[in-house]
Parts: sequence; C-alpha cells; structure tokens
Amino acid sequence: MKIVALAGGVGGAKLAHGLAQILPPEDLTVIVNTGDDFEHLGMYICPDLDTVCYTLAGLANPETGWGRVNETWNTIANIEKLGGPAWFRLGDQDIATHLERTRRMKEGQSLSQTTKDFCGAWGIKQTVLPMSDSPVRTIVDTDEGELAFQEYFVHRHCEPRVKGFRFDGVQVAESAIGAREAIDSAQAIVICPSNPWVSVDPILRVIKKINKPVVAVSPIIGGQTVKGPAAKMYSELGIEPSALAVAEHYGNLLNGFVLDNVDKNLSDKIEARTLVTNTLMNNFSDRARLATDVLNFIRSL
Amino acid sequence: MKIVALAGGVGGAKLAHGLAQILPPEDLTVIVNTGDDFEHLGMYICPDLDTVCYTLAGLANPETGWGRVNETWNTIANIEKLGGPAWFRLGDQDIATHLERTRRMKEGQSLSQTTKDFCGAWGIKQTVLPMSDSPVRTIVDTDEGELAFQEYFVHRHCEPRVKGFRFDGVQVAESAIGAREAIDSAQAIVICPSNPWVSVDPILRVIKKINKPVVAVSPIIGGQTVKGPAAKMYSELGIEPSALAVAEHYGNLLNGFVLDNVDKNLSDKIEARTLVTNTLMNNFSDRARLATDVLNFIRSL
Repeated sequence: MKIVALAGGVGGAKLAHGLAQILPPEDLTVIVNTGDDFEHLGMYICPDLDTVCYTLAGLANPETGWGRVNETWNTIANIEKLGGPAWFRLGDQDIATHLERTRRMKEGQSLSQTTKDFCGAWGIKQTVLPMSDSPVRTIVDTDEGELAFQEYFVHRHCEPRVKGFRFDGVQVAESAIGAREAIDSAQAIVICPSNPWVSVDPILRVIKKINKPVVAVSPIIGGQTVKGPAAKMYSELGIEPSALAVAEHYGNLLNGFVLDNVDKNLSDKIEARTLVTNTLMNNFSDRARLATDVLNFIRSL
Repeated sequence: MKIVALAGGVGGAKLAHGLAQILPPEDLTVIVNTGDDFEHLGMYICPDLDTVCYTLAGLANPETGWGRVNETWNTIANIEKLGGPAWFRLGDQDIATHLERTRRMKEGQSLSQTTKDFCGAWGIKQTVLPMSDSPVRTIVDTDEGELAFQEYFVHRHCEPRVKGFRFDGVQVAESAIGAREAIDSAQAIVICPSNPWVSVDPILRVIKKINKPVVAVSPIIGGQTVKGPAAKMYSELGIEPSALAVAEHYGNLLNGFVLDNVDKNLSDKIEARTLVTNTLMNNFSDRARLATDVLNFIRSL
C-alpha cells in the first residue's frame, strides 16, 4: 500500500517514523513543510525537513524531538561569547547539515536533490521530499505585526497573539519533483499530526489538487497539543481548540479523521469517517501502533 | 617602547605572544596577514588572524599552533559523512568565529571592527589589526597552474612546485584604520618569524612606506623552517634556503636581523646589524625570552 505522508516537525516526524516501521521503504513518501525554512548565520536551515530526516534515520534527540542525539553545543556557546545570536539552538552535528546544504545550494543543487543525497548518507530508505524547491516563507501576522516564522516560534516563544498567516512565494511555488508522481501512485494521503495552520496548510497550498483519499490525524488531544502552538493559535483566532476544529479546518478534503480516545465524544460531530484510538506517541512502538491503526483505517475506507 | 609586529600564522603568533608577555598592552600592535583569507562552506575564514588572536588569548591549541585548545570536531565529521569538503579542518569552537564574523561582515561591519570586538570578547588587551579591510588574496603560481593559497597550502599540502606569487587586490587595498597611526607612533617594527613570501610580503605591500627602524626575525633556522613551506619555496625559486636568504629578501628595509645560534656563521654576510640568539620557541617562556632579546636589540640599534 503506497502512502504519501504530509508532515511538519516533531509530531509529523513521529508518525512518519511509525509508517516507516510498517511499510516497505519504497511504499512511503514523506512530503515535508518548508515554510519554516530560514536563513540564519548565513546558513540555509530547514527545521522540519531535518527533524523528519533525523527521526527516520534514528539520529533525532529523543528528549526534544528535534536536533541530533548525543549532540554537543560548542559552536553556539562560542557564538554567544562573541555576542552573536544564540536564540536558535544549533548543535555542532546539526550545523554540519546546514553548512553542507548551504554549500550545495549555492552551487546550484536543488533542495530536493540535497535532501536525497543526505538521506542516502544517513541510511534513510524512504523517499523524503521538501514540499517545493522554491522558497515559501510562512509569515505570522500578530498583534505586534508580521513576524517571520522562526522569529515568532523560537525567538519570541509564540508569545505574540496570532491574527493570521500568509505564505510568501506559495503562488508561484511548484511542488518538488517526484511529489506529484508520489501522490498519483499512492493509495492514500496521510496528514500527520502536525500544526494545521503553519505545517500542513503550506504543503496543501503547494500541492493543490489531491485526487486520492485523505486521512488526517488530529494534533489536538483533549483540547491541547502535545507540542507546539496549534491550540494557542486556534484560541487566538477565536476557535475553540479541539480535534473537531482540526477536522473542520480540513473540511471536504478529508475522507477519514483519526482522533484520540479522550475525544471520542467529538466523533459524531465530524463529517468524515472517524477512527478513535490512542494517538499519543511516547515511544517507537507507539508510533508503529498508531501507524498500523491508520493503515488499517485506510484499508477500511 | 611602542612596537608594531607584523605577523602571519603560527610562528608570527608565537613571537607576538612573547612581545605581549613583555610589553604593556597599549604598546603592542600586531598587524596580521589576510592574504590567506578565503571563503569556505559559505564562511569568511581568516586563518592568520585567528591564529594570532587565539594565541594571544591563550585559546590556541598548543599541539598544532593553530585552532582552538580543547577543540571538538563534530561539525566537520558530519560534513564529511554528507560528502562535503573536510580538507580544511574546522573545529566546532573555531566555526563559531567564522560564522559570527561572516554574519557581521554581511551586515556591513569591517573586518577590523569585527576583530576588535572579538579581541574584547576573548580578553585580548593588545591591538590586533588585519593588514587591510579590503580583500587581498595570495595566489600561488605553481607548475600545476595558479592556486588560491589555502588550496595550495592545506588542500594540496604545498606539493605543487612554486614559481611565484601574486596578491590579488593589493594595489587598491588600503591598510586597516589604525595601522598607519600605529606605525607612525612606534619606536620600531618587528617582522615576526613568518613566511617572507606569503605572510610578510603581502603586509609590506599593503603598508607601503615604513619610516621606522625594522627588525626581522628569521623563520629559517639551519636552512629549515620550524613549520610551513618557506624553505621549500626558496629551493623551488632557485634560492638556497637560509637566514641569509631571508635577510637578502628584505634587503634595505632592515635595520636589524635576528638569526639563530646555529646560523651564526652567516652573520658576517648580512648587511644589517645582527643579533645571534636562540630563536626556537618551544614554550611560553621561550617566546618571552626571544621577545626580550629582540626588544634589547632594538634598544641597541
């Protein structure tokens, strides 16, 4: 069963890793949000892409979900001593990814080719694609004005109140080579439990038409997110954060929706077919179990 | 006694450090070669400037003379795993210097201002100046064609035979702000035991007029260099490598010349006044002892 997973950072990477544990590698393509990408200290940084790749490769820090396991922090500590910006926590191993990617892209290599090469070096057998090889930049409109995503997310700790979002460059961005073909040959599309507003929407905007069954997994459990600002964003946009709100966000796109046991009372209010299960992923086997549930749900649709 | 020292990398840094141990900080200005600077992995790297600063700050690796003490190598190891260039050995702490310098210079800060700020952060009380804020690039003409300096020096391990040198940009480069004033108020100029061809010549070409007594310390001892390709360069250019050859290289510029005890038989052949002493610097006190000898020699001229 060929599957295309759409993923943002930590939550998306976990389910992608679950699917990778179950499916043959050639049957899984992960299309990753690049709206969070930014230039920092002269380096081209792709936080979601790196989180997905590190997670699939078994190189991710299990404590944080992002960054590398057994990481050291000597570069950023010394940048801080020199009075440089240290708010974006870059580990020494992680910096290698950014430096080498930046070098390749300055030589004209595309982000998707760089990603393919890096996946090869890291032993990742699944296909990981950036949503686009063209720059798309998520801009958060807040009560303090417009902020670039990482400025809002990391530097300002999501503190400014959200009023809306826009995705610079999304109108002209084409999906990365291979993304369309992967969707066309997939049995279903899985929207991973990532932030609907800033992780999944940019991917959907770039991909445009999806003529395959779509199943989304709610990133909101009991009105809260495991990680990240999705629930806070819903509230600030005047919507009560809930699995129902997520399902309504995706609307007609959905054929199936997966929500947590704690939200089973919401199931009846959701138009799409639903699967109520344990959606928390605390360890590797949780990821595989949820992936199995999602795949069985897809088969049942 | 106000002194201006002209320095390249490791050898120059050692004598600069010796002078720094003897002179009050406000009496020492070190003007450093930037002809070896290059862009690598998107970073603006100044090998000689960093070696001088790390040495003065007590942060240099005592084994190699270049790079940082207690260094880790996690970034470069991971760049290598990704198939990137690993021939220029960049430590994790050292990379902070390059990233933060590159960030500042992209924002328009001059190399000399960046150097001043970094010296402040590292607790260096002496004045360290790049020879120029304009790019000057040492190009080595070899039997395999022209090579950028680091390509010749590090990547090719000085293997190609040298035919000559040129310094791209030297005609239009002005000396860094403060260099002229430091020379004008100095009692003497000390040419440190650095490579005459590729470390000192670029500085002299940028500085142009020196209206003060000049004393050079030979980097060649018993026909050999402690480190680096100066002796090999002399041979390939058809000149027998020796302290005498170094003195003749600087010619009329010199008022005094310092050569090692093992070369005392060459002393009579040198036109400038000479000091024959132990010029090997194996430890911190050797550096201070040689600096004391050089300062006493200057007083005697």
